[in-house]
Amino acid sequence: MTWFNNSWMARKGVARGARGKEHLLSEAVQGKYHYVYGPYADPVLRIAPGDVVVAETHDAFEGKLRRESDSPSELLHMPFLNPQCGPIAVDGAEKGDVIAVRIHSIKPRGEQPIGTTAIIREFGGLVGTGHTALLNEPLPERVKKLKITEEGITFNSRITIPYEPFIGTLGVSPEIEAVSSLQPDYWGGNMDVPDVGPGSIAYFPVHRKEAYVYLGDCHAAQGDGELCGVAIEMPAVVTIQIDLIKNAPINWPRLENERFIMALGSARPMEDAARIAYRELIDWMVADYGWDRLEAYFFLTQAGRVRLGNMVDPKYTLGASILKSYLV
Amino acid sequence: MTWFNNSWMARKGVARGARGKEHLLSEAVQGKYHYVYGPYADPVLRIAPGDVVVAETHDAFEGKLRRESDSPSELLHMPFLNPQCGPIAVDGAEKGDVIAVRIHSIKPRGEQPIGTTAIIREFGGLVGTGHTALLNEPLPERVKKLKITEEGITFNSRITIPYEPFIGTLGVSPEIEAVSSLQPDYWGGNMDVPDVGPGSIAYFPVHRKEAYVYLGDCHAAQGDGELCGVAIEMPAVVTIQIDLIKNAPINWPRLENERFIMALGSARPMEDAARIAYRELIDWMVADYGWDRLEAYFFLTQAGRVRLGNMVDPKYTLGASILKSYLV
Amino acid sequence: MTWFNNSWMARKGVARGARGKEHLLSEAVQGKYHYVYGPYADPVLRIAPGDVVVAETHDAFEGKLRRESDSPSELLHMPFLNPQCGPIAVDGAEKGDVIAVRIHSIKPRGEQPIGTTAIIREFGGLVGTGHTALLNEPLPERVKKLKITEEGITFNSRITIPYEPFIGTLGVSPEIEAVSSLQPDYWGGNMDVPDVGPGSIAYFPVHRKEAYVYLGDCHAAQGDGELCGVAIEMPAVVTIQIDLIKNAPINWPRLENERFIMALGSARPMEDAARIAYRELIDWMVADYGWDRLEAYFFLTQAGRVRLGNMVDPKYTLGASILKSYLV
Amino acid sequence: MTWFNNSWMARKGVARGARGKEHLLSEAVQGKYHYVYGPYADPVLRIAPGDVVVAETHDAFEGKLRRESDSPSELLHMPFLNPQCGPIAVDGAEKGDVIAVRIHSIKPRGEQPIGTTAIIREFGGLVGTGHTALLNEPLPERVKKLKITEEGITFNSRITIPYEPFIGTLGVSPEIEAVSSLQPDYWGGNMDVPDVGPGSIAYFPVHRKEAYVYLGDCHAAQGDGELCGVAIEMPAVVTIQIDLIKNAPINWPRLENERFIMALGSARPMEDAARIAYRELIDWMVADYGWDRLEAYFFLTQAGRVRLGNMVDPKYTLGASILKSYLV
Repeated sequence: MTWFNNSWMARKGVARGARGKEHLLSEAVQGKYHYVYGPYADPVLRIAPGDVVVAETHDAFEGKLRRESDSPSELLHMPFLNPQCGPIAVDGAEKGDVIAVRIHSIKPRGEQPIGTTAIIREFGGLVGTGHTALLNEPLPERVKKLKITEEGITFNSRITIPYEPFIGTLGVSPEIEAVSSLQPDYWGGNMDVPDVGPGSIAYFPVHRKEAYVYLGDCHAAQGDGELCGVAIEMPAVVTIQIDLIKNAPINWPRLENERFIMALGSARPMEDAARIAYRELIDWMVADYGWDRLEAYFFLTQAGRVRLGNMVDPKYTLGASILKSYLV
Repeated sequence: MTWFNNSWMARKGVARGARGKEHLLSEAVQGKYHYVYGPYADPVLRIAPGDVVVAETHDAFEGKLRRESDSPSELLHMPFLNPQCGPIAVDGAEKGDVIAVRIHSIKPRGEQPIGTTAIIREFGGLVGTGHTALLNEPLPERVKKLKITEEGITFNSRITIPYEPFIGTLGVSPEIEAVSSLQPDYWGGNMDVPDVGPGSIAYFPVHRKEAYVYLGDCHAAQGDGELCGVAIEMPAVVTIQIDLIKNAPINWPRLENERFIMALGSARPMEDAARIAYRELIDWMVADYGWDRLEAYFFLTQAGRVRLGNMVDPKYTLGASILKSYLV
Repeated sequence: MTWFNNSWMARKGVARGARGKEHLLSEAVQGKYHYVYGPYADPVLRIAPGDVVVAETHDAFEGKLRRESDSPSELLHMPFLNPQCGPIAVDGAEKGDVIAVRIHSIKPRGEQPIGTTAIIREFGGLVGTGHTALLNEPLPERVKKLKITEEGITFNSRITIPYEPFIGTLGVSPEIEAVSSLQPDYWGGNMDVPDVGPGSIAYFPVHRKEAYVYLGDCHAAQGDGELCGVAIEMPAVVTIQIDLIKNAPINWPRLENERFIMALGSARPMEDAARIAYRELIDWMVADYGWDRLEAYFFLTQAGRVRLGNMVDPKYTLGASILKSYLV
Repeated sequence: MTWFNNSWMARKGVARGARGKEHLLSEAVQGKYHYVYGPYADPVLRIAPGDVVVAETHDAFEGKLRRESDSPSELLHMPFLNPQCGPIAVDGAEKGDVIAVRIHSIKPRGEQPIGTTAIIREFGGLVGTGHTALLNEPLPERVKKLKITEEGITFNSRITIPYEPFIGTLGVSPEIEAVSSLQPDYWGGNMDVPDVGPGSIAYFPVHRKEAYVYLGDCHAAQGDGELCGVAIEMPAVVTIQIDLIKNAPINWPRLENERFIMALGSARPMEDAARIAYRELIDWMVADYGWDRLEAYFFLTQAGRVRLGNMVDPKYTLGASILKSYLV
């Protein structure tokens, strides 16, 4: 694959794009899943740059919502949501480096109906929440179970949605903080950006020794913004390859695929997420593609693209991207 | 064109999609251009539903930035920016109706270099502004002139951007307010959403007798967010067909094209623009396509798309859309 | 009154603090009240700098909510809310000047119960609104009528609130815009800041010939933020003295009283209103009190005060102030 | 002190207001200070409800800014800022309880000039930051050292600011998260609200066994909003009494003093912090003072007060309060 050979991962990664050993991170190997991104858990796996990890992820509810008659408020308990595989210790990683995660495949696992979406009290993009704290009555709770195969997602009797899976929550540990896996931030986490799927490489700034990679929360599909707060959540088998780029100071997660490079900002209000994403993208164009800072500002004004990941998590996430064809 | 025959405009418009008389709204006919959307100006044209208008628009700077050495702060004076053609009085329009604007074509006019972009003091998405009022020094002013043809926009010696023109500012008059043409709102205005181009139909809620349609501010191309605040601005010849849908209460502008329907929200902070757009889209799905409200909320969570128009104007504009293929 | 003699109004106003002619702006003189701040209405009064105006204002509902059983959604119709007295033409005022409004007194008028507060659908600080557009059901409508005298406001059988009246909506016309009297902005308008009461002088930047002063929307009392969106609204007799300061470029409304000077910012999100207010206050300290810009920034960090006016109007308003005792 | 006997702490605390044992939490006892609020550190002290703790706190920079010529960017390193005393384990505390912290005194300690304020790159209320990510150049760095005594703070040769000390950062551990001491949230933390000073009692919802109380970051004085991001920071000797209220579900920090009760919300954008604070205050009025929910909403509209704590930290903090005289 040509574009991969020219990717930042293949050019600058310690493994130079070569595929290392494969590690199975099964439910049994993982044992207890984690609900924070942080440095206080013991690694479940130690890998070398270039190694491949095949991980069995839970859905965001750890499988607790089984029937459409289930009550989220009875079965789900904060902060024990969005269980994560990891931490995966990456040999040689240090603060100031970058972890590259190439996503090979995401496959649904478990018994049908595998998929779950739900309306949860005081959570979602079109309701009052714990932060946008209002006096209105909450919407009624609702759980919807869906059949998912790689051929499609049966939304209802009329509508099938294409299977376009991605990793909702992926990233590395902060240096000394341990933050809920519900939150996206500069270390990645719950960004819920659909571009983080097979065929893309995600990059994260390393903040501590061995990086400590976490992942979970796969979605079979998701609209921009993840409007009600719950995409089509599913347990999955995820195959990723992890590499390490030494001495590569970046401030926020980045992503590349065959067509574009993208920077990912997470913040509230939403305009701050957009500002972060676009500024990080400008920094990238300046540092790696030789652009003048203001010329890049001008150019993104005319040709930049924005993807809204989530408008529901503790911070909202947007990705700002530019086609690679403009950068050569 | 099949999709047009099934459009809201063709099905419900007074003209039933038929093409009426053609009116030339030349610079001479327009005379003085306007800087507000409001009811206090006299119509420059009176048309019947179904009529076509060919309008000569100025660029957002009314042609005052001619050379790259020009100083925006010396030549531009608030509030006399973003000059608009209109108002066009539409026969029979009353509060509670909808104006449909089908965009046929947008062609650059004038002498090369036709296009202008600029960095303007305290304006733009990555700088302190009059509202995000800071103590940092402003960026240096800069003007960039570009050659535009229908084959492409010469950004610099290496890069040509496709010609993807649209109407940056389009809408109708508020009932009793007269608001700067720099602002987007529920009546349309300066939304700066690239989907408002040839091949689309935009819909606006009517607030006063004869609607009073305004338009201007064409862009030869624009990235999501219009990052520095100034797209590739150009004077243009715009051909639109205007129809009237009686008794059609909508709250915010809407748009349709061959592929999708979209609702357009404008507000600050940006999440409110997204909320408005998605709620208006749900209202549309419920009223015209028979969806249950919560089912639509669930579905947009999985399949909705968001386009960021601008993150620089007095209100930010986002469009939320859903493919028509899901609605049948 | 010593402080008044040292006020900006008395020192720099055309009238030098002297009291001119008194004008009665009764309901009869006013005739039709206005719902926008703009230049398109004819003046109801022409005055000289220093003149006093005694105005009869309506409450924000123009008296339409008479009984607690009244339904706001049936009786109130946008945009015909918040009726204003004016415009008052001030002789000699031009763009770039400042209008000073010294508030002498505000007295309730009309039959008891004079006061009205209400819960209105999709309006208020703790509910979803037209901008924070949500799917939650609105709160039930409610109207509360209250007896108001200058001795106090009978909130209920147990509680009397002190009579602390102020002018909710006060300002001048924009240059070419005509904007709803529900909105606060750089020209003043619906700021709903309790400091704009007897004993204070408010200052507004002039944007057009004769300034065109508007006022209305008196409140007998109000908490910070005007939480449900409706303070204790009352019709009133307002006595103000208007003066003119020539060539005094300010960007946002300002206020002074015996104790402090305050700058007033209006924007969304709320942090932008705070930024505007503090930056305008720094500009004031630099221009009129000889402070270094960064020293003022340091000092307001330690001694600045913020008053939240409203968190419910189209823009939120905050006042940032500093004690005069620190400025000498 | 009558009001204290009627306080929530004295009425409902396990110690019923009685003063227990006194513990010295000196620098030596504390040893290593902490930079996160979390459950992963070992307690430095175990106390019983009612006990008094005398703690030696560092300033927010751990004393690293000694001279006005010091460079913050060279001497300060994220995330090792805002060092905290603690955690203090409170015997018997469990999730669902409340920790009450009565603040007895705050005294400056160390050698003059004890106080420090500073302008730090990309931090502060009137500059672009890491979140409001802009392209403008940062302000120049600046450090200002100030003499502090209990008689006053020498701001400069002309101005002395009253000594009005408070605890900038105070709270309890989240359940499984460990979050930077720079951030305020539902567990307290870096709220920077000047009311958290001698004569007040602060309340925090307990999230884990023994609560784990942290404190630090004393300010000798601060304006509303902590505008430049750095108040008058000082090392201090803090005397607090800690009590435990069993089974008292609250969602956000609260505070009471002789005059009022206050709820404290932290969020971005700022309006969400205001919404949280006011909703929590309504919940308090309903639960403990017998108010009807909508009547409380009405009443706070007329008599509520808002204090802006900070507009600079990762979340902004506002306190909403109501006079106790209205509640009886």
